[in-house]
Amino acid sequence: MKNNFFEKAEILCVGTELLIGDIVNTNAAYLSRRLATLGIGVYRQAVVGDNPARLAEDLRAALSRADLVVMSGGLGPTYDDLTKETAAAVMGKKLYMHEESLARIEHFFRSTGRTMTENNKKQAMMPEDAVVFRNDYGTAPALAMENEEGKVVVMLPGPPRELEPLFREQVEPYLWKRCAAVMVSRNLHIIGMGESSVEAALPEAIRNSSNPTVAPYCDTGEVRLRVTAKAPTAEEAGAMADRMAAELMQLPLGAYVYGIDVPSPAHALIALLETEKLTVATAESCTGGLMAGELTAIPGCSAVMAGGVVVYQEREKTALLDIAPETLAAHTAVSATVAKEMAEGACRVLGADVGIATTGYAGPGGGTPEEPVGTVYMAVSFRGETVVERLSLSSKRDRKYVRDVAVKRAISFALSFLRQKTKKS
Amino acid sequence: MKNNFFEKAEILCVGTELLIGDIVNTNAAYLSRRLATLGIGVYRQAVVGDNPARLAEDLRAALSRADLVVMSGGLGPTYDDLTKETAAAVMGKKLYMHEESLARIEHFFRSTGRTMTENNKKQAMMPEDAVVFRNDYGTAPALAMENEEGKVVVMLPGPPRELEPLFREQVEPYLWKRCAAVMVSRNLHIIGMGESSVEAALPEAIRNSSNPTVAPYCDTGEVRLRVTAKAPTAEEAGAMADRMAAELMQLPLGAYVYGIDVPSPAHALIALLETEKLTVATAESCTGGLMAGELTAIPGCSAVMAGGVVVYQEREKTALLDIAPETLAAHTAVSATVAKEMAEGACRVLGADVGIATTGYAGPGGGTPEEPVGTVYMAVSFRGETVVERLSLSSKRDRKYVRDVAVKRAISFALSFLRQKTKKS
Repeated sequence: MKNNFFEKAEILCVGTELLIGDIVNTNAAYLSRRLATLGIGVYRQAVVGDNPARLAEDLRAALSRADLVVMSGGLGPTYDDLTKETAAAVMGKKLYMHEESLARIEHFFRSTGRTMTENNKKQAMMPEDAVVFRNDYGTAPALAMENEEGKVVVMLPGPPRELEPLFREQVEPYLWKRCAAVMVSRNLHIIGMGESSVEAALPEAIRNSSNPTVAPYCDTGEVRLRVTAKAPTAEEAGAMADRMAAELMQLPLGAYVYGIDVPSPAHALIALLETEKLTVATAESCTGGLMAGELTAIPGCSAVMAGGVVVYQEREKTALLDIAPETLAAHTAVSATVAKEMAEGACRVLGADVGIATTGYAGPGGGTPEEPVGTVYMAVSFRGETVVERLSLSSKRDRKYVRDVAVKRAISFALSFLRQKTKKS
Repeated sequence: MKNNFFEKAEILCVGTELLIGDIVNTNAAYLSRRLATLGIGVYRQAVVGDNPARLAEDLRAALSRADLVVMSGGLGPTYDDLTKETAAAVMGKKLYMHEESLARIEHFFRSTGRTMTENNKKQAMMPEDAVVFRNDYGTAPALAMENEEGKVVVMLPGPPRELEPLFREQVEPYLWKRCAAVMVSRNLHIIGMGESSVEAALPEAIRNSSNPTVAPYCDTGEVRLRVTAKAPTAEEAGAMADRMAAELMQLPLGAYVYGIDVPSPAHALIALLETEKLTVATAESCTGGLMAGELTAIPGCSAVMAGGVVVYQEREKTALLDIAPETLAAHTAVSATVAKEMAEGACRVLGADVGIATTGYAGPGGGTPEEPVGTVYMAVSFRGETVVERLSLSSKRDRKYVRDVAVKRAISFALSFLRQKTKKS
């Protein structure tokens, strides 16, 4: 029975545009990640061009080592695209015209007002007794075929916007029945603690736990504490992961967690503002509009986003936020005082409940001995109370990194301050 | 002689984090791109984990097919990192302590104030008669080794911020002497014409030219017309590419080219503003700060960037830019009139020479039958003259795409308007 489960998988991507480096292979990472959640280990990823001989060689080699091979790309309509023909031959399958797919492809072209060419029909040819996964995102259907030894080849179209939903919605349920276990992860997003301190803050027992596993990962400006549980079903694994996540939230580090499985601090902040019916405004110097951009990236932010100002020059700091030239002269634009006045100015000028401000040196130029490149003051103002925090990043970091981290930190700083202020007692 | 040149290369990346999909393999794309410029074709990319047996198997297979194998990753200091040991064994080389590298690593740790552990010394072990490329960006040096058959294995550290400069600055010159030809590309960045119309606008002779080749590529919101010339030296290839680029600029499509080999319209705009000694301000609605963020991403922008406002609500459009509520009521916030007043308001309020504004429906919500999601009005104001353009993207596009394209188009719209206005006659 056990050996009927998938254990080893390999990923085989086809595409000259990958080999010449015109595009980055995000499919391999996506497929590896998803297969891991099914408890299937990926032992190799390979990329080959549209060359039948090399492709056949690689596919045979992969099938000799793995019991599952997931392929992406090469399903295009052009006649020189022989990936499907080659894979079918290696698996000992003949191709036939899959009428349902043909009808879908014809419909797809009609609905998008494009004209279907003869060779698009080729995309509806399927290997005998293959499982066909219908593609609602493009023309080429995905498919899975199994040989006598029970080894499976899954073929997916190359464009990520087609491959990802097809794999998630149809291929995963198909693979399910041959998965020994399912892995479910929960991610605790932490800001304000480094990776090593998070690790040190974990009790011995949790650090050594093998199921669920608990491990910190370092992302830009934050640490992600990943809890991964393994169980026969997704429900059981999910419950195990949730119990561990709840346990971790009880630890002191729980105070630094801005959310569990939330895409970013901005999402968490917008959600909090919505529930509290509060509006927010930004005043940015070094982040130059990125903070407002991050908040407005979230659909529905218009309910809480008042607006923002980018005051890149001292003149604008005075003109738009009424910051006295004397203040700027006395403290310089990169100071706790100016950050504070910027946040308060944002509330006043844009008529918002919450004001968030950033001012600092993003580099490469600028900075002083006391305030080198990488120094950013962040301020949050709410109902007349304003808090300021100083962020000092290594001056070795580049401009983009300093700006991205400053945005993330400023937003999560606002988030934790508001959480504390709006907590129902 | 000919067979002394590199013809076929394969790329072999080592790293469990790649196999579990925790990171995307940008190294493979980068290395492929750079090797193409050296006229060396990449026939295969593979990723394996830190497993000596599998690694040796893959490296032997690669060496049997290719005359150059470029490896990345696996040069870390941990003892279970056996990539270098494995590759050296496959190439039949012993390892020795490379004193110069050891000194550098010790120095690196002193200068970054970190303490060096015993196993860091392992990173200074080098295969006999290997060419060592010193790493000023991290601890592990890169290296190249050649076997009796003249086949070469290049090993590079995994982190892109180390791999990329090491390859560009030291490995490429090393490969040079065995390159039959060098390819040099020039990219003409075009905005306002689709990929197919650019292709159609190319004369038959140019479209069929085999050296230089001329081919359009579709990037987000723009088309890149790539000219690639092949010659024995970089100088000759560069000259050929430049001649073709100049010829293309004479065609009608030349009017849509915002720059040659410039990273983005923002870079071109900032450069133009600097030469003309002009300042710019932004007024954003749907792009919510991203346009200001794009302009301020460029180091040295402070000389020309006055600042910007994000007016997400009608109230702020009135409060910050004095747009009459009647105007908003009569035309709605997403209209040519409001875009025009926003651009003019940006100049006035921020005291800038040039004002750029965007207002539109980024989706998923919002929009009207006449102005569906994907509609964005862009306005540019300069010395009392204001021009407006309406961008209408497919409502199938997501919020991020609409915002990114709107930013790019608005900036290039400003660029072409200013070029025309500041042209010396």
